[in-house]
Parts: sequence; C-alpha cells; structure tokens
Amino acid sequence: MNDIVVLRIGHRPERDQRVTTHVGLTSRALGARGMFLSGNDSGVVRSIRDVVERWGGEFFVRDGVSWRQCIREWKETGGCVVHLTMYGESLADHEDELRKMERIMVIVGAEKVPGEIYGLANYNISVTSQPHSEISSLAVFLDRLFQGDELKREFPGGHMKIIPSQNKKTTEEI
Amino acid sequence: MNDIVVLRIGHRPERDQRVTTHVGLTSRALGARGMFLSGNDSGVVRSIRDVVERWGGEFFVRDGVSWRQCIREWKETGGCVVHLTMYGESLADHEDELRKMERIMVIVGAEKVPGEIYGLANYNISVTSQPHSEISSLAVFLDRLFQGDELKREFPGGHMKIIPSQNKKTTEEI
Repeated sequence: MNDIVVLRIGHRPERDQRVTTHVGLTSRALGARGMFLSGNDSGVVRSIRDVVERWGGEFFVRDGVSWRQCIREWKETGGCVVHLTMYGESLADHEDELRKMERIMVIVGAEKVPGEIYGLANYNISVTSQPHSEISSLAVFLDRLFQGDELKREFPGGHMKIIPSQNKKTTEEI
Repeated sequence: MNDIVVLRIGHRPERDQRVTTHVGLTSRALGARGMFLSGNDSGVVRSIRDVVERWGGEFFVRDGVSWRQCIREWKETGGCVVHLTMYGESLADHEDELRKMERIMVIVGAEKVPGEIYGLANYNISVTSQPHSEISSLAVFLDRLFQGDELKREFPGGHMKIIPSQNKKTTEEI
C-alpha cells in the first residue's frame, strides 16, 4: 500500500478538537500511517494515541509542527503533496495517477486555508465542488486511493477487537 | 440513483452541533435526498438550509422527529434500513446487495446508540471495525453505493458555483 500521511492545518483548539480527532481517527482507520498537526493540542494527541494503544496498529500523531517546514521536507524527500479542497480538480480525474505515487501527504484544512497552500501542493483535489466536511473528503480520498484494500487491514497489538455481527455488539478483549 | 435519506440519532445540541452539521452536508453533497434529526436543533437546521439555499439542490432537513416512528414509517412503506456501526458486518460483503435497494434510510448515531436500533435495522454495517467517525463511515457508504456517480451530480438553483481549478479558488455567483 502507498505510504500516506495527513497534515491537518488551521486547527483551532477551542473549536476544532472533535473534528480534528475525527480527521486523525479516519486517517488511521482508512490506512494512513500518521497525522501531523499544525498547532498544539495535547487533548487531540491524547485521544488518538489512546485509540492506537487500545485498538492496535502503529499510527503516529505529532502536534506542534510548522506546516511550511513539514511540506518542504516531504517534497524534498520526493513525496507528493495533495491538498483536499472543494475548489480543486475532481478526484475522479486524478485518482489513477495518484494511486501510482508511493508517498503522499494529504493536507486537510479547517475553515480558512492560507492561499500559499494552493501553490505548494502538487495537486489541489476536490471531492465534489460542494461544501461538506474535511472528514468525508479524506474518507472518500483514502478509500478510492486504496480501492477498498484498507477496509481489510489488521491492526496488530491492540487490546480490543470487534467481532463483526449481524445485530449485536461483540467485543473481544485481548 | 437510489433514494437515500439519513436519520441522525443521539444528537446532543451542546456537543454535536458541528459533527451533525457535517453529517448533513456530507449527506447532501454525496447524493442523499435529506436528513431527519432525532432531537431539536434549529442551529443545525439553519446551517444546512443556508447551504442548500446558496449552493442549490433540493436536500431537506427536518429536526424533532421521533426515531422509532421515523424508522417504522420507512419500513412500512417498503424502505430498507441500514445502521452504520463499527460493530456491524463489513460493507464490502453487502454493498452489491444494498445497491439494489431502491430506498434506504441510513442511521448514523452519535456516541451512544440504543440497543433497540440493532434489531430494528435490516442491516448493521461497518466501514472497518475500528473507531473513527460517523462522517467518514457515511461518506464511504454513499460513495460506494452510488459508485462515484454522486460526484458528478449537479445542484441546480443555487447562487454559488465553484469552477474547479488546478491552483486557485474560483467561485461564480449566479
């Protein structure tokens, strides 16, 4: 599978804590390797690390990064940068091409994204040109990139596991 | 396209306003016909109606519904009910079957979902058995159900439209 990391920018601690946590958990569940968070929020970091600890896998989360530096380093080491934005080009028109990239940094913004990001990204990609949610854009992006392989992933090393069921909650503690 | 409505349950006005708004906007952008909200939240209703007014289409949102009655009426008129839950059966195993259903009500819960829902739903379906986000589960569900056709939808009657661009924000006011 491609090596995908997510860079969350524009996070406002008082307002975006839950949405950013959902961004992180979606990244993890749908096959990304980790999330960089521009800005500091130990609450978000703790929530996500707690899920990793309980549910397994090796997802990383790092806050307090500078987005400019993070993007620069990724590009310098040959990685591709994709900014998800409703203003971008259609995902459907680029997904085959993107699937060939070994390493992708996916930038997911909150309400206001600095104009500079549009120029720094190798691709500005939209999941519909309608307003919805950075969480849903990221989910559709990852599912299409991995073509469903991410849904079969195992997360070794956790203490909790769900046994899929037709009509009840079955959890196994390991 | 199949007729899809979303039923959001367990909404807590003080806590879930943004997440529920994202659920509604994701439903709209990815091809659902409307959202029922169990509980009252005029703020969420206003935000979503405001997007419909500006961006077009005919998405409905109705709060203050009783989830029991909503589900009962849907089933009585021949509709299928799908509850999205990390405890359910894998989406990949059921998507072909679900695509044949003409009318689907998708139930999207907040943190605590009454046990009764598991029995009332025709299907309990998971998008991975890992904790992530009801918004991302819904997004992957809709994208797979419509097989990408929803990304090409037009939303007639709005005042705003985006012109997809490689590297800038281009909006047209109509």
